[in-house]
Amino acid sequence: MADSHFDLSALAHASQDLYAAVRRDAPLVQCLTNFVSMNITANVLLAMGASPAMVHATDEAPEFARVAGAVVINIGTLSAPWLESMLLTAASARQAGVPWVLDPVAHHATAFRRNAVQQLLALRPAIIRGNASEIIALAGGRSASKGVDARDSVAQAEQAALAIAVAHQTVVAVTGETDYVTDGKRSVRVTGGSALMPCVTATGCALTALVGAFAAVSKGDPYIAAVAALSCFGIAGQRAGALAEGPGSFAWRFLDTLAALETDSLTRESPLR
Amino acid sequence: MADSHFDLSALAHASQDLYAAVRRDAPLVQCLTNFVSMNITANVLLAMGASPAMVHATDEAPEFARVAGAVVINIGTLSAPWLESMLLTAASARQAGVPWVLDPVAHHATAFRRNAVQQLLALRPAIIRGNASEIIALAGGRSASKGVDARDSVAQAEQAALAIAVAHQTVVAVTGETDYVTDGKRSVRVTGGSALMPCVTATGCALTALVGAFAAVSKGDPYIAAVAALSCFGIAGQRAGALAEGPGSFAWRFLDTLAALETDSLTRESPLR
Amino acid sequence: MADSHFDLSALAHASQDLYAAVRRDAPLVQCLTNFVSMNITANVLLAMGASPAMVHATDEAPEFARVAGAVVINIGTLSAPWLESMLLTAASARQAGVPWVLDPVAHHATAFRRNAVQQLLALRPAIIRGNASEIIALAGGRSASKGVDARDSVAQAEQAALAIAVAHQTVVAVTGETDYVTDGKRSVRVTGGSALMPCVTATGCALTALVGAFAAVSKGDPYIAAVAALSCFGIAGQRAGALAEGPGSFAWRFLDTLAALETDSLTRESPLR
Repeated sequence: MADSHFDLSALAHASQDLYAAVRRDAPLVQCLTNFVSMNITANVLLAMGASPAMVHATDEAPEFARVAGAVVINIGTLSAPWLESMLLTAASARQAGVPWVLDPVAHHATAFRRNAVQQLLALRPAIIRGNASEIIALAGGRSASKGVDARDSVAQAEQAALAIAVAHQTVVAVTGETDYVTDGKRSVRVTGGSALMPCVTATGCALTALVGAFAAVSKGDPYIAAVAALSCFGIAGQRAGALAEGPGSFAWRFLDTLAALETDSLTRESPLR
Repeated sequence: MADSHFDLSALAHASQDLYAAVRRDAPLVQCLTNFVSMNITANVLLAMGASPAMVHATDEAPEFARVAGAVVINIGTLSAPWLESMLLTAASARQAGVPWVLDPVAHHATAFRRNAVQQLLALRPAIIRGNASEIIALAGGRSASKGVDARDSVAQAEQAALAIAVAHQTVVAVTGETDYVTDGKRSVRVTGGSALMPCVTATGCALTALVGAFAAVSKGDPYIAAVAALSCFGIAGQRAGALAEGPGSFAWRFLDTLAALETDSLTRESPLR
Repeated sequence: MADSHFDLSALAHASQDLYAAVRRDAPLVQCLTNFVSMNITANVLLAMGASPAMVHATDEAPEFARVAGAVVINIGTLSAPWLESMLLTAASARQAGVPWVLDPVAHHATAFRRNAVQQLLALRPAIIRGNASEIIALAGGRSASKGVDARDSVAQAEQAALAIAVAHQTVVAVTGETDYVTDGKRSVRVTGGSALMPCVTATGCALTALVGAFAAVSKGDPYIAAVAALSCFGIAGQRAGALAEGPGSFAWRFLDTLAALETDSLTRESPLR
């Protein structure tokens, strides 16, 4: 890997510092996200101490982006008016120096989505978070998925992630059983989580929004923002998974474990590999 | 009843086989459903092993329907652009031979809904799932409900269900304390569930989507698909009700019991009467 | 305070009577509310025995308002088509003598929202429910909040609430650690709740809808309706907070405690001060 000599311990400490900053600064995270994920996304952000704002209309979203700490754009339940607003808001964020994060949900499923994602990519997201099938398709590969769920492994998507990171000068986070994050030069794997997580809808979408919260306080290093957010999900997800009896109990236990996450757990129980 | 001689045991075994097929095939279920129900609907589908996709826009929903295993259309939070997309998508599904399921939420409440449901009916849903008030009104009767909740008993709706099934050559599932399913020739009652279920919003909508998941694997017998989905809800709902302390705990326990449902419970604890 | 001589015990008894009426009459509450809150709002209304209806489109919302017990308008995820429908529906409700309740979510955040709220105010809501930052901004003051969350205390917002109540002949409920309700002549504080409540998204929105349920049965005294709804939230919230381990468990325990609320708890454990 590109970062074989990178110090995982230093990265864990940097993640820990960012997490403390999220708790301290309560960054305002503007989400233009899908209808399925809005509630859990807001609850995940609140559990971590961030301040969610679901502001999506063309009449106000571009204006709001200028005061947000970060903008999160997720195409899960896309439509033409939302896409128009996403493009205007991403452009506004970019102009104002506000980092924005892209979640290209099932972008390979339809022509409308494929085209939408190309337009959004041109507006330079700081970070892209997707599952393996989405990242493979984004790099031009052939994904095994027809819908929202991943049908490829993260390991199969690593080369695609690297290629996208280099081509678009962005950070790519591929999440799955073990996550992979790269900015084209550095890369790391993030362990943890739970087999129950894919059985709860929109956990990936909520993670993308949390990546936004960390990007808001990361002072220009989106790579560490992505790693830190994924680390929190990995640790809290593992704890919730150990307590849960099924996907229903996992969902609320995960919010409890996220809210209870000690800052130093990001170094003591670092999931980075 | 029309099916007084039908073998309930054979029906339970056919339901069990369909449930195994849902778990095995993870059918892609495209939902054009209401905003209230999207999250719980996706979670119910995931808990049962199906793959939900909330794809609703005119720009892509008709295209997506051609690769879906089933399409579910629910008018709970209807608006003109959504209705346009629902009509196009139902037509696309029908043309592609993909079964589609209709949930005519509170269609009796306004002229807009009444008209919408007539247009949708003309596109030949494979299955209609509603509460007693909705089914009575659909057959032209006078429902006691002004809004979303049922104010009539399932027993009062059985003749209406039969009439609709015959007139529209479809399967009608009326759900309530004891459910009733008919395709105009066969019919059966499904017991189980919990008094807490109507206290949790959108459980009926989620059930409609689950009916879609079963229709996707039912090889052209939508009657058994509806019976099987209702059976799963009946058994898991009864188990969750026994464990819950109120509607809040019922909601997550129900997802846990759905996810933990053993295949053979559809025959061992058959709720069919 | 304006009501220093008002009998808190009489107010608690009046609240208790209203709560019994909600349970008895199951009022139909039409909500034009934000996407984040729809599910929890419907579940809170169901837990208290009311009947939620999320009917929002211009094609039917004004018509539906005439049969609703109350209308609730919440601008959390506002857009131009929704605003148009909100204005038509509020006007329809007003004309039909149906009380309507306004939740001016983050109205200070953008020009679009500021303008929307002024148009809505002109249609005379019976009750306005907001957090301290929203109420301060509504009175023309300078709020410390940039987004959805309050950054001011309720105590700081009391004068603003009084001013709005007098100017618009309405009831204003400011909610936070201790709530404040006034109709310009009477006023009261409502205690209870939990520090976990602001960590669960849309609890305030759900409360606004519950205020609507009480307004539907209040026979023209919206002040008592607001006080009664806030009292239920205060008592149930406190109980849930004592049982919860974090925001995830608070959310479902709160629905359980709301559903289990005894009528006489509004007098026995009155949170009014």
